[in-house]
Amino acid sequence: MLDRVVPTISSLLNARAAGHSLPAGLYIRDDVFEADLDVFFRKHWICIGLECDVSEAGDATVIDIGASSLILLRDDDGVVRVFHNVCRHRGSRILDGGPTIVSKLVCPYHQWTYELTGELAYAPHMGANFDKECRSLKAVNFRSISGLIYVCLSDNPPDDIDELERVMNERLAPYDIRNTKIAYEKDVVEEGNWKLTLENNRECYHCSANHPELCVSFVDLDFGYDPDSLSPEDKAQADEHLALYAERTRRWEEEGHPSAAVEQLIDCVTNFRTQRLIISGAGESQTYDATAASSKLLGTMTRKDLGDTHLWGHNSWKHFMGDHAVVSIVIPLSAGRTLVRTKWLVHKDAVEGVDYDLQKLTDVWIATTDQDSDLVSRSHAGVMDPAYIPGPYSPFSETYLEKFATWYVDRMHAHGY
Amino acid sequence: MLDRVVPTISSLLNARAAGHSLPAGLYIRDDVFEADLDVFFRKHWICIGLECDVSEAGDATVIDIGASSLILLRDDDGVVRVFHNVCRHRGSRILDGGPTIVSKLVCPYHQWTYELTGELAYAPHMGANFDKECRSLKAVNFRSISGLIYVCLSDNPPDDIDELERVMNERLAPYDIRNTKIAYEKDVVEEGNWKLTLENNRECYHCSANHPELCVSFVDLDFGYDPDSLSPEDKAQADEHLALYAERTRRWEEEGHPSAAVEQLIDCVTNFRTQRLIISGAGESQTYDATAASSKLLGTMTRKDLGDTHLWGHNSWKHFMGDHAVVSIVIPLSAGRTLVRTKWLVHKDAVEGVDYDLQKLTDVWIATTDQDSDLVSRSHAGVMDPAYIPGPYSPFSETYLEKFATWYVDRMHAHGY
Amino acid sequence: MLDRVVPTISSLLNARAAGHSLPAGLYIRDDVFEADLDVFFRKHWICIGLECDVSEAGDATVIDIGASSLILLRDDDGVVRVFHNVCRHRGSRILDGGPTIVSKLVCPYHQWTYELTGELAYAPHMGANFDKECRSLKAVNFRSISGLIYVCLSDNPPDDIDELERVMNERLAPYDIRNTKIAYEKDVVEEGNWKLTLENNRECYHCSANHPELCVSFVDLDFGYDPDSLSPEDKAQADEHLALYAERTRRWEEEGHPSAAVEQLIDCVTNFRTQRLIISGAGESQTYDATAASSKLLGTMTRKDLGDTHLWGHNSWKHFMGDHAVVSIVIPLSAGRTLVRTKWLVHKDAVEGVDYDLQKLTDVWIATTDQDSDLVSRSHAGVMDPAYIPGPYSPFSETYLEKFATWYVDRMHAHGY
Repeated sequence: MLDRVVPTISSLLNARAAGHSLPAGLYIRDDVFEADLDVFFRKHWICIGLECDVSEAGDATVIDIGASSLILLRDDDGVVRVFHNVCRHRGSRILDGGPTIVSKLVCPYHQWTYELTGELAYAPHMGANFDKECRSLKAVNFRSISGLIYVCLSDNPPDDIDELERVMNERLAPYDIRNTKIAYEKDVVEEGNWKLTLENNRECYHCSANHPELCVSFVDLDFGYDPDSLSPEDKAQADEHLALYAERTRRWEEEGHPSAAVEQLIDCVTNFRTQRLIISGAGESQTYDATAASSKLLGTMTRKDLGDTHLWGHNSWKHFMGDHAVVSIVIPLSAGRTLVRTKWLVHKDAVEGVDYDLQKLTDVWIATTDQDSDLVSRSHAGVMDPAYIPGPYSPFSETYLEKFATWYVDRMHAHGY
Repeated sequence: MLDRVVPTISSLLNARAAGHSLPAGLYIRDDVFEADLDVFFRKHWICIGLECDVSEAGDATVIDIGASSLILLRDDDGVVRVFHNVCRHRGSRILDGGPTIVSKLVCPYHQWTYELTGELAYAPHMGANFDKECRSLKAVNFRSISGLIYVCLSDNPPDDIDELERVMNERLAPYDIRNTKIAYEKDVVEEGNWKLTLENNRECYHCSANHPELCVSFVDLDFGYDPDSLSPEDKAQADEHLALYAERTRRWEEEGHPSAAVEQLIDCVTNFRTQRLIISGAGESQTYDATAASSKLLGTMTRKDLGDTHLWGHNSWKHFMGDHAVVSIVIPLSAGRTLVRTKWLVHKDAVEGVDYDLQKLTDVWIATTDQDSDLVSRSHAGVMDPAYIPGPYSPFSETYLEKFATWYVDRMHAHGY
Repeated sequence: MLDRVVPTISSLLNARAAGHSLPAGLYIRDDVFEADLDVFFRKHWICIGLECDVSEAGDATVIDIGASSLILLRDDDGVVRVFHNVCRHRGSRILDGGPTIVSKLVCPYHQWTYELTGELAYAPHMGANFDKECRSLKAVNFRSISGLIYVCLSDNPPDDIDELERVMNERLAPYDIRNTKIAYEKDVVEEGNWKLTLENNRECYHCSANHPELCVSFVDLDFGYDPDSLSPEDKAQADEHLALYAERTRRWEEEGHPSAAVEQLIDCVTNFRTQRLIISGAGESQTYDATAASSKLLGTMTRKDLGDTHLWGHNSWKHFMGDHAVVSIVIPLSAGRTLVRTKWLVHKDAVEGVDYDLQKLTDVWIATTDQDSDLVSRSHAGVMDPAYIPGPYSPFSETYLEKFATWYVDRMHAHGY
């Protein structure tokens, strides 16, 4: 008879074989996408931006996550707040996209007017019995972790973000991300599922052949390799690098710079990994020649040779270096389209053309994100093909994909799928 | 457990709270849109155009309503007719979009040829036994009410359109809409649900802040206001306006010009409202300075000071003034896209540049429709947001929205939803 | 009560009335489209290209059929092969669209490297226990019938393609299609269902009014006509043509050129029809004046007066003439969009500008495919209209549509619908 029964999401999850990429349906089906949005982008913590997106009192910006639109603002007292961009009258969008400066939030439709604290201050024609108290803008659960804004769109935010907060507050303190400015920002829409975007970010198996610019400063071997796959010369180089890395990490730790990897990748709700990575060559920064792009270092940093504190979440990756930081945020648009928003941060007082050269600051990661976008679209097209069957992850260089896939399936199960 | 059961349309309708905007699903879901199309655009009367769209024998024009395509034509005897634009052979479209002149209707595919009465005159290669009689073009139920073409695409058109016909034939007689011409026509696609388009049209709460051009001639207070929301000066102005309005209406009625509001908005199948509205300022017409745009008045009109006879339906709004009329027709394209087609009518013998200035004739409503389009898209985006919850209608200035929502829910129930 | 129950595909198939076009749902519904793709484009043989698409060892080209992407290549030994364009690692596309030259197939993502025979030669970082043997590129069932590439994407290809192969190998031998070259190729996207594209191709009832260029050389009467529909003069001409045709066919057969029609159109899995058709006027080729466009004849042809060997399949139509051939391949894109890819073939040694004039070679079928595209879109728009009801096929000139519809319904039933 016919094989036209569409498998349930649960059966797709159960069909996932250990050590292998996910069944196609999990990447391409619209119902899975809706479930993903609900589970991973509403019921988990996601990174949406930075305090420095709204540096001054009255700064506001709009961030769209699927159909949700959020207002991130700094109120008159300098307090950062996040609201839903939905008027409590008939639901109109209050602010348009992009950054702006506000003294009140005035809905353009009927002039309902909210304080920057979210309270409804004014609503004409609603009559004497109208209760303004219960019509404040809906606030969004959020945490600023060293200036990184994480939100949870559900009413029951997972509490194991405490661990992320504890670890990163210590590690990020010297970078003082709250006192950075966004030197550049770029949106790239990848023609692929958000999980393919994540998988692509969690291995550097593809780096050497695809990211020549990044590989000047980034060591692809740090995310795993099969020694038998290397030529004798490459093997000798790898051994040398590992020895150097161990020594460098030991020294950093002795000097009081937390460097060892901290992972919360499986058996957890909130997914993250951080580690101080070595920077190759000149050793300072992820630029075309691995030297710093900004002469004004971040925060209280006095050295350029403290490597790259990387941080992964399930919707972001970040690199904190002595002179600048790069923050990429992943926002799913549909089963087959994903927005990757990248921001380049420098010290808030750094002056373009004086302290830093914008092109030097940005060109490596602009090239890298474009190359990744191509790989993700190629990957998604293949996964759409009826001939696709889940293939094996490398047990050396794709171990973080295995962890991500495991976590993904577990989290879906935890939400009843 | 999981909240993944999609609510039925019925449960969405039942969830609607009195005095509040509709639950989101009724604005945004595709299945609701299909139901809306079926109920409100196939089984109710809708306005699709005007007799003056086809002024002369042999004139024809094509009007698309969703997947339906209609031919509006005037046959050789001057009789207006409406047919489905579907060949009875293999279904090909017979006419392309837009106005044309025809002597027969010839399907370009295989030359099946129909008389302008719809009869199949010629169908080659069909053999001796082929029965042409039963292959006439399918005619569409329609009524011309003072030259306004209403159709019902179902076989059982509601009969309470009689009341609309009776009321409007009396009121529109002096405007002689059959003997107008279309001076200008403009299509605007609003990025929002058709019900948001309608709601936007049924209140003027948003007018003062959004429609500066229209507010020269249009009195937003006429659709309701909360006196306590007004400043003392505005309150005094409003009182003065109301007194003037009452006096003007009384005089108009005495002079034999029906002016009082007639509403058939709830507890009915066919939804309409008409009233002679006062025009502000110069008092003549909805132009930038409220003076007439055309020196040749409509029909048998001899005065410019008879205000604005407005007419609402569930897919149109219209304004009939001494010198011209503006007719807007609403055609849903998808759950989130709605076509608003606006036609500006002048006396059929009025000459552009001599009797009327086209820019003066059109600029107020061109600006207004563009402003409304922006408001509707902003409204739809907000309703799409998971943070949207139905909000309260103003008991003063949004009473017609409450009636529309009530009628909408009732009509859906009447059709089994 | 409500008529909101969506009919099953089976009930649509059963609702089809003999002698009439299909019920609308079979042309326009997404679920029917998915079923069509599965049944007719995965489980039946389809034509995807030609050996001369990859003339030399190392030539490769990518052909997309829905979400499936196929690599057609010629390996180092000159053997033609077809593979799925899906890396066995994580599914990435290996080759981009369009023709290319390859020595190995290297996936750009992680450099998994395949021989042109499909074997996995190299996959770094996969460890000592990794079994390359079972990771060859997935091969696609295919046959080259006189240089025409037919594939079946399922594992159980129907075997009655043998008859197509037997008949066409004999008829096509003198044209030596393997030794042609593609002088020109054009993709046209028709805004209609693939079955409307096929129906349009299977009658010439529409030709006289729509294809003036084609009708110079093509005799629309050859696909059937109602004698009573013709004027006395046209009738006399038709009689003359039929007599000439009978005589010409008799002579061709005597001279050893198979000419009679061979049909396998109903009660079969693989659908085809071939016949040597007469060419009108100058009698040589489907050009604007019916004379040959290429002075270098195909294969071992020595005469230009051997008419047009046409070949139909359910996703292609082809015309083989003395001087050139035209091959059109139908690839469905969605329920309402269909790609028609047309290739013009000349002798492989023919030189443009010397042996043939490219414009003369191509202009008739470029015009014809554009005209057909318009007819198909017009047809699809009409079938989408709720007012569409299946209409009668001409018992004279649309007999092949009746056969196609019958075969379509039968094949759907055979696959459980």
